[in-house]
Amino acid sequence: MTVAQTLAQFAVNAEVRDARMRSFVTLSLFDWATVGIAGTDEPVARAARSMALETAASNQGATLFGGGRASAAAAALANGTTSHALDYDDTHFGHIGHPSVAVIPAALASAETAKAGPEQFLDAVAVGLETACRIGAWLGRSHYEAGFHQTGTSGAFGATAAAARIYGLDAETMAEALCLTATRAAGLKSQFGTMGKPLNAGFAAEVGVTSALLARLGTHSAPDAIEGVQGFGPTHAGSAETAALDGLGTDWVFPRISYKFHACCHGLHAMLEAARELRAGGLVPSDIEHIAIGTHPRWLAVCNKAEPTTGLQAKFSYRLTAAMMLSGVDTAALDVYSDATCAQGDLCTLRDRVAMQPDDTLSDSEAWVKVIAGGETLEAHHDIRSDADPAGIAPRLRAKAATLLGRKAAEDLWAVIALLGSGEGTPSELAQRIGCERD
Amino acid sequence: MTVAQTLAQFAVNAEVRDARMRSFVTLSLFDWATVGIAGTDEPVARAARSMALETAASNQGATLFGGGRASAAAAALANGTTSHALDYDDTHFGHIGHPSVAVIPAALASAETAKAGPEQFLDAVAVGLETACRIGAWLGRSHYEAGFHQTGTSGAFGATAAAARIYGLDAETMAEALCLTATRAAGLKSQFGTMGKPLNAGFAAEVGVTSALLARLGTHSAPDAIEGVQGFGPTHAGSAETAALDGLGTDWVFPRISYKFHACCHGLHAMLEAARELRAGGLVPSDIEHIAIGTHPRWLAVCNKAEPTTGLQAKFSYRLTAAMMLSGVDTAALDVYSDATCAQGDLCTLRDRVAMQPDDTLSDSEAWVKVIAGGETLEAHHDIRSDADPAGIAPRLRAKAATLLGRKAAEDLWAVIALLGSGEGTPSELAQRIGCERD
Repeated sequence: MTVAQTLAQFAVNAEVRDARMRSFVTLSLFDWATVGIAGTDEPVARAARSMALETAASNQGATLFGGGRASAAAAALANGTTSHALDYDDTHFGHIGHPSVAVIPAALASAETAKAGPEQFLDAVAVGLETACRIGAWLGRSHYEAGFHQTGTSGAFGATAAAARIYGLDAETMAEALCLTATRAAGLKSQFGTMGKPLNAGFAAEVGVTSALLARLGTHSAPDAIEGVQGFGPTHAGSAETAALDGLGTDWVFPRISYKFHACCHGLHAMLEAARELRAGGLVPSDIEHIAIGTHPRWLAVCNKAEPTTGLQAKFSYRLTAAMMLSGVDTAALDVYSDATCAQGDLCTLRDRVAMQPDDTLSDSEAWVKVIAGGETLEAHHDIRSDADPAGIAPRLRAKAATLLGRKAAEDLWAVIALLGSGEGTPSELAQRIGCERD
Repeated sequence: MTVAQTLAQFAVNAEVRDARMRSFVTLSLFDWATVGIAGTDEPVARAARSMALETAASNQGATLFGGGRASAAAAALANGTTSHALDYDDTHFGHIGHPSVAVIPAALASAETAKAGPEQFLDAVAVGLETACRIGAWLGRSHYEAGFHQTGTSGAFGATAAAARIYGLDAETMAEALCLTATRAAGLKSQFGTMGKPLNAGFAAEVGVTSALLARLGTHSAPDAIEGVQGFGPTHAGSAETAALDGLGTDWVFPRISYKFHACCHGLHAMLEAARELRAGGLVPSDIEHIAIGTHPRWLAVCNKAEPTTGLQAKFSYRLTAAMMLSGVDTAALDVYSDATCAQGDLCTLRDRVAMQPDDTLSDSEAWVKVIAGGETLEAHHDIRSDADPAGIAPRLRAKAATLLGRKAAEDLWAVIALLGSGEGTPSELAQRIGCERD
């Protein structure tokens, strides 16, 4: 079997009965909608939405974050871009990227235009997310290191699987859709730090919808277009990690997903979680004499602004964000990363008590924090890859949503997702929700 | 200056006064429309058009080959695909691909929706075609050999320049559009022989339109996204042939374009032109005793079916197509490549008098034909790269159009293009023409 056939068999036939997978799909739907609604006014989101509205002069089609409708393809592009605009969406370390922002917009836009029911929608999201993670791992780190942005490339395959499942394609046609995506999947890491990064997610979502539509309309492409001679993998520095496709449909790798609970560089998150634990234990900022932070050495070149002065610099500062967390600042909020926060006296005092310690015994998802307070030494360690209990994650995602959207909008969104998850709601109700004005 | 800035300066500011360039732009417009109209009923063209019609529920927008309208982006995708469906469009050996099928649909769809005038449209087509050829040469043969299909990749950059020129972007915004295309341009040669090949042209056209629209709406991307570290060139086996950008705006490389006058494999065309010359000299098939054909050795592995039995095999047969040409069969017609032609007695007799001779002193665009007839030896040589006289090409393109579309439709189309070329017609009139039903 070709890679496309293997993935297609899975994406068409998989029954998503795994409770853990279903939980994480629901959580990711909620988080995706949260960060998308919160990102609606970002400049790149406005541009992508304007294009969608300009190019579709009708009131049919699929709903856009912020309201309005466009064709499924144009909506997927706009909504994918919007949901990645804040870079606050979920991350999968096996995929090496952000699966939800490519897959979910393709699934939702297709579901809305095809009037899919809740089960069909949830299954499509599940197989799309899983496909993105599997092909991301199949392409491997070599693909990423060569300069490709898996959010865009693997994302396009996942988006294709999701849209094709919504459209009810059979396995042969699903494979055609995936092979068409092989000649289109794209996205470069050299766009990081620009609007090109969120747009890579949007483009991937759009490719998924149109490849699925074209395959449904009877197009044919090269059957070994993913792994064959000069196929997508070989031409894009793919590792062809065949083990990455093992257990498809029985084991689900997507639930190893990580959510962002802090609106700053991902390199800071393990430290912030450890510091959060110490604060939850009753630590009082005024008692703190010294703080030591251990982190994987590579992060020190990424997010170790010692004395940040701007909001943007604050997002890349171990010392300041540690002080913020230990002082009870809500690091999930977007607006706490400000010039004013950088200049705040008590935070600067605490910040200056932090000493960084590179620790190469840690993986890049781990950190430890040691605090000396009132003569005592308190210590916590955290690995963000181990945040794997859906029951523990749900309240934190709801708190994040409340911070970003306001409590009422967050709880309304949670209710819509819960209804959808129980098979009573519809994808259109979710679409309607993302199209609402913000509170 | 970055590559994007260099191209943007050119694409925004170039005044297309070069008479030769203007002639070839007009010829390519005519040939593009011809092969697109002729390709409208191909299965891949039907699929792409159906998708465009499905996704745009309005009567506004841009016209599709075969009729109907869609958004500029969807129309560019459908029309790019349709015009490459027959693989009968123009070829540029420096670009290493087919420039018109990506650039012209993007320009026309943008021009129609933006209501651009004839000069603006012609200039946009000119800078788009030139940009595609320049970036194709900049990427170089290494890019092609690695598996990338310049029709799709370079085509996307050319389509971007054309659409952005239509939208009146300034040089800075044009550069933004080109850098956004750098994270999206795609297309694999491993799709050759499938519908993925014409779709690569359509996808490139679509990318051009949407990158230009997004840049106009204020998106920003990495300024050195074409040549920078892990930019498009470095991640896609580009050679970075800087000389390929020399003389931009003063020298025009597009006029080295080649047109296809025979509906068969390009490897046969030099031989067919040489044989055509002998026939034009009065050679009578029944006098022919022996035919020798000299060609570059690599073509013998591509298109040397000695005794074809199907129409498709006929398109890859030196011996049979030589017999067809010398017998006066119209090799520009699609339907002469048939099983019946393969079985026709007189053609098979003549075919069996052909001996192939690999000749490594020839380039791959050259061939010679030697015929012994009535005791005399007649000889002709042809290089398809030297077909560079617009005055000589025009009647042949009109004859090709008459073969494909019928004489009246061909002459009507010619009149529309001539009016447009003189600055009196409009892009909308051309669009209307491509949307007509065929005679």
